[in-house]
Amino acid sequence: MIAENYKEMLNGKSVIRELFTYATERGKEIGYENVFDYSLGNPSVEPPKNFTQAMIDLLQHADPMLLHGYSPTLGNPVFREKTAASLARRFGIPYTAEDIFPTTGAAGAIAHAVRAVTVPGDEIITFAPFFPEYSPYINLTGASLKIVPPRVEDFQIHFEAFEEMINEKTMAVLINTPNNPSGIVYSTETIQKLTAVLTQKSEEYGHTIYIISDEPYREIVFDGVDAPCVSQYYANTLVCYSFSKSLSLPGERIGYIAVNPACKDSALIINMCGQISRGIGHNCPPSIIQLAVAEVIDETSDLSVYETNMNLLYKELTNLGFTCVKPGGTFYIFPKALEEDAKIFSEKAKKYDLMLVPGDSFGCPGYFRMAYCIDTEKVERSLVQLRKFVKECYGVQ
Amino acid sequence: MIAENYKEMLNGKSVIRELFTYATERGKEIGYENVFDYSLGNPSVEPPKNFTQAMIDLLQHADPMLLHGYSPTLGNPVFREKTAASLARRFGIPYTAEDIFPTTGAAGAIAHAVRAVTVPGDEIITFAPFFPEYSPYINLTGASLKIVPPRVEDFQIHFEAFEEMINEKTMAVLINTPNNPSGIVYSTETIQKLTAVLTQKSEEYGHTIYIISDEPYREIVFDGVDAPCVSQYYANTLVCYSFSKSLSLPGERIGYIAVNPACKDSALIINMCGQISRGIGHNCPPSIIQLAVAEVIDETSDLSVYETNMNLLYKELTNLGFTCVKPGGTFYIFPKALEEDAKIFSEKAKKYDLMLVPGDSFGCPGYFRMAYCIDTEKVERSLVQLRKFVKECYGVQ
Repeated sequence: MIAENYKEMLNGKSVIRELFTYATERGKEIGYENVFDYSLGNPSVEPPKNFTQAMIDLLQHADPMLLHGYSPTLGNPVFREKTAASLARRFGIPYTAEDIFPTTGAAGAIAHAVRAVTVPGDEIITFAPFFPEYSPYINLTGASLKIVPPRVEDFQIHFEAFEEMINEKTMAVLINTPNNPSGIVYSTETIQKLTAVLTQKSEEYGHTIYIISDEPYREIVFDGVDAPCVSQYYANTLVCYSFSKSLSLPGERIGYIAVNPACKDSALIINMCGQISRGIGHNCPPSIIQLAVAEVIDETSDLSVYETNMNLLYKELTNLGFTCVKPGGTFYIFPKALEEDAKIFSEKAKKYDLMLVPGDSFGCPGYFRMAYCIDTEKVERSLVQLRKFVKECYGVQ
Repeated sequence: MIAENYKEMLNGKSVIRELFTYATERGKEIGYENVFDYSLGNPSVEPPKNFTQAMIDLLQHADPMLLHGYSPTLGNPVFREKTAASLARRFGIPYTAEDIFPTTGAAGAIAHAVRAVTVPGDEIITFAPFFPEYSPYINLTGASLKIVPPRVEDFQIHFEAFEEMINEKTMAVLINTPNNPSGIVYSTETIQKLTAVLTQKSEEYGHTIYIISDEPYREIVFDGVDAPCVSQYYANTLVCYSFSKSLSLPGERIGYIAVNPACKDSALIINMCGQISRGIGHNCPPSIIQLAVAEVIDETSDLSVYETNMNLLYKELTNLGFTCVKPGGTFYIFPKALEEDAKIFSEKAKKYDLMLVPGDSFGCPGYFRMAYCIDTEKVERSLVQLRKFVKECYGVQ
């Protein structure tokens, strides 16, 4: 029989996808270069040339049987070693290969991490504004996602609401810093306060409360921003990483879980991931991609365009009177709409060929997200439209 | 808290993996060329040169942003179209792109198929001997796997036992033809009889009973063997395919689900797969692999070595007095051991550097599997050891 829960999900439409589809259709009418599509978080810069060259070298020179053969259950040893060494070097945490489990991007990492530290009925807490896919990611495991309301003045954590929500069923908190959609980076103060609460509550409840730290934007942090490494502050941290943004490879599905070696269950959790894979049809990311990424483990795409774009947008938005917290990283900005219902605001913006995603699905109504992973030249042209839009619709001069 | 069910799974050791590890260690002592390792089902022939060339061409000439960008939720359209056209051409079933969902190999395909047509508490029936990974694949979804005992005279289906086992909770049967571990291909008669039972029982119970047809060995069928296309006989068939064996790409994780377009829920099931992915962290197989495989969709590796090896082994085994059903495909053969406990038989064979997997974990004690995806020259040398082994241990002349 057809599984009704998945069937019903088909009725829920993604606002982001709908906007993107509208933008694509509109592009056919007026040229896509004239549609200011801030809807999708797709990287806009090329992968490093060394990645492409590593792929070609492997195809031309490696033994094809080894290159394309099954990865071991826990992933390719070279990928695991190079990842651990890179993390150890950069963050001063003594990761070894045994603490790393390669996954199909951050989605695959979260799928494993949640199953490792919860059973159906348990709760995981996250903080609005949050990536809307967290709901199906968590809720379809049988655990349930609880959402702490946003602290809109700076998009750091609303601790009062958090402490009301945490309880004995809480097995993990899921954080995302730098954050999609706000672009905010949690400060050292925020992380210290969070880990203090978790340490105290772990003791009170008699079980570990893990941090699942979703870090696909870790390499996109802007100049001078305080961007603490979460795992340095809390041993029971499972980092979920993806190379989608740092190497501009979202379609190649490559990331990892890194369990802090100081976490008492580190080796156990990594080994359990190999078992979890069997139930979810995962069986390691593609072999050739693991090997090629291992070759460029310390590189990134040229990510500077995102900061350039952010500065242009932030300046214009604040000039136009928007309430807007300045992003510390990512390629998102999350201003307050100029009327209460951001969905209506977004609908009006479409008439000016500006694709702005209302914040409702991110758990933050009244705000809107702009994904500025587009060419700077296009950002500049969009400002003209933005000015026209707010002047004509909201009387802003 | 640590999820105990996955933790407990760590105590269950894979006999196949243990044998393989032993073989690797033994190889360090006497040279791996002298270890007759029939343990693992890893392809032993190279991928087609055109696959490698397609990969290089994509890396050198395609727009890297499109090449490595996110696949749409339901997979790359080119891959879906070419796969559908190839299947339609070969099997006369009018598949279109809308009936195809790309997955990370057959494991990913089964993970989606099972979740689409069952809910926790439902049952899926499979037939021994069977691929042991089916147990975690199914049981970790919350559905449960029921195993029909083998019909050892020919390894076709034991229908009496099957009809006793099928009941109102049965939502699907999972078949694997050509079969791992027996090498047997289900005959047209078997398929007709199976589909007749399923049609009748679907009507009796008032719900569809699906066939989930796991077909990674579809392209490895030996000369003159009756190898019916299951989907031609039963509309409610979900084919789970992998290119791991046909293109020798097991590590690149590429396969698909193909739902027969005559299945009344075809479009629904494929769309549901896109939702199922969100809960299991799947999000499409790697983009570049989808595109490169689409370029060689009608090709295979040179698979002829497997039939050569099978004939050598089958002849020698029957000469030595083994009871053995002649394989119709795959790269496995599944003879009866020369003593009741195949684990003891396998242990004795290790002393002759022959790695034979006892049939217990395949649901068929007393038999053993040989995976003859190795060089023919090595198969020939192994026959000397095999003769020595059965002569010295079992007095066979």
